[in-house]
Amino acid sequence: MEAENEIRSKRYAADISSIREAQVRINSFIHKTPVLTSETLNSLAGRGLFFKCECFQKGGAFKFRGACNAIFSLDDEQAAKGVVTHSSGNHAAALSLAAKLRGIPAYIVIPENAPRCKVENVIRYGGQVIWSRATMQSREDIATRVLQETGAVLLHPYNDGRIISGQGTVSLELLEQAPQIDTIMVPISGGGLISGVALAAKSINPSIRVFAAEPKGANDAAQSKNAGRIITLPETNTIADGLRASLGDLTWPVVRDLVDDIIVVEDKEIIEAMKLCYEILKVAVEPSGAIGLAAVLSDSFKKNPAWKNCRNVGIVLSGGNVDLGVLWDSLGK
Amino acid sequence: MEAENEIRSKRYAADISSIREAQVRINSFIHKTPVLTSETLNSLAGRGLFFKCECFQKGGAFKFRGACNAIFSLDDEQAAKGVVTHSSGNHAAALSLAAKLRGIPAYIVIPENAPRCKVENVIRYGGQVIWSRATMQSREDIATRVLQETGAVLLHPYNDGRIISGQGTVSLELLEQAPQIDTIMVPISGGGLISGVALAAKSINPSIRVFAAEPKGANDAAQSKNAGRIITLPETNTIADGLRASLGDLTWPVVRDLVDDIIVVEDKEIIEAMKLCYEILKVAVEPSGAIGLAAVLSDSFKKNPAWKNCRNVGIVLSGGNVDLGVLWDSLGK
Repeated sequence: MEAENEIRSKRYAADISSIREAQVRINSFIHKTPVLTSETLNSLAGRGLFFKCECFQKGGAFKFRGACNAIFSLDDEQAAKGVVTHSSGNHAAALSLAAKLRGIPAYIVIPENAPRCKVENVIRYGGQVIWSRATMQSREDIATRVLQETGAVLLHPYNDGRIISGQGTVSLELLEQAPQIDTIMVPISGGGLISGVALAAKSINPSIRVFAAEPKGANDAAQSKNAGRIITLPETNTIADGLRASLGDLTWPVVRDLVDDIIVVEDKEIIEAMKLCYEILKVAVEPSGAIGLAAVLSDSFKKNPAWKNCRNVGIVLSGGNVDLGVLWDSLGK
Repeated sequence: MEAENEIRSKRYAADISSIREAQVRINSFIHKTPVLTSETLNSLAGRGLFFKCECFQKGGAFKFRGACNAIFSLDDEQAAKGVVTHSSGNHAAALSLAAKLRGIPAYIVIPENAPRCKVENVIRYGGQVIWSRATMQSREDIATRVLQETGAVLLHPYNDGRIISGQGTVSLELLEQAPQIDTIMVPISGGGLISGVALAAKSINPSIRVFAAEPKGANDAAQSKNAGRIITLPETNTIADGLRASLGDLTWPVVRDLVDDIIVVEDKEIIEAMKLCYEILKVAVEPSGAIGLAAVLSDSFKKNPAWKNCRNVGIVLSGGNVDLGVLWDSLGK
């Protein structure tokens, strides 16, 4: 009940109204991604699974929803100066593409260790790449300099109400496409996707469970949930390159209040789930994209009696931008 | 006009009525597979492309449509004795699954060189594997023996009106999902899929162009079309293991009369198209499944002035059953 009251009192950076507005705003630009099912994977999980394939979204990830919502929310004068972001890749590609659609420049600060295919996506969509070192400090410093030089608007990858609202449209579509869903499993990194998904889903149906899936080597969200405050990690170590960010002050309250549990999985479980996505579902996902399946198949979720009645689980396959070479190495030929 | 009259006079093993009946018969068993689009691939092709993702079909390929239609067409007495086939794999898995749904045995004669994942699919779906040598003669001999011993019904992978009618439902769905399509590109092997697709599409709209995509190392259909009679090859050599069969006496007349042209591509073009499917479309296809994209991107199609007005092309991604190891070797790390 506390959670529902909180949603109603709009103490968060987004709510069901801003998410519905986002849906109207971005609807003609995005792909309505399909929901796939597999009886083989249902058998493995012991539940019904509904895969929301955001890897088929434009730019190869759900990030295009938030980027589109943010960019088309700007007034003309703001927009004309362009947008800036620093990102490990998917948000950057998404922002480049949305900016191109609006006809404005996108300045993208990218760390030198970003995956090749994510950088290629930025370039393909017309983003202007500005390299930084791999540290968050270097990324932020360079972004600040670009902001000063251009007067562009900084669009944070997740700690922004417009971004969270855009990502929340995943929930609206998913619950329309598979209304039997009683549970949603979402990858967690900075918390933009899961915040939007949880705010929308719990407003539509407060009994829906929302879980986060997080890699053990970057389990800051699980630690934060336990500690009751934002914990950041000095370093992360996971194959899921898209899940290394820390919660923001706008996403943390949603994660704290509305996410039922955080399921932490090992990299080897992520790799196994990726393999199942390729071999059974025939969908090319990146490691971060496969983690929801890994979580649903993990012992900590399967054997937890509290989640026994999660019968129909929506799993967000959040992205598909993976270098084939990296994929192969991780599958350990 | 000749083609249309022929369709109307029902000189073929299937027609629009039998295909619509198949759709009603199999509708509750199959996946209605999504149609994906990519502006990046549209740019590469210089046309609008609409990817009908039969790799997401149950069993990982379109074959389940035909198998389901054939098996649910049998009367109870026939069905009880089971079904037999010899197949390189996708038809076998499809038949096993359809038989399981009807609760009857499926005896599957598989050549010893079939891809591992295709054999695993047969076993997963409860088919009874009976090994043969790699030659067509050995496959047929062993199938005949099984028929005699069990009284089961032989279901040929493609040279059967019920199978052709089932495969034709791909056309019905595709044209409903993307009505702007003026052209359909279909992989060709034994001709079951393209016969069903062409019969349905040209009955619905005689101006739709239907093309076959065929690997150079197994180009019997192109040779047959040139010669005006069925040509079989002494041996085939292509990475597209699903496209090595020869036309049958029921599929050949449809290919002869209703297929506008056969686009022959090199294996290296197939591999490049597979890579695009993985990296851009995020769909895991087998080599045979990617050949339609290879054909659309080939010079012989792109530069042919006769096909310049093929603006919106439906491409059937026919299957996704590929061993990850084989995939990687073919992508030539």
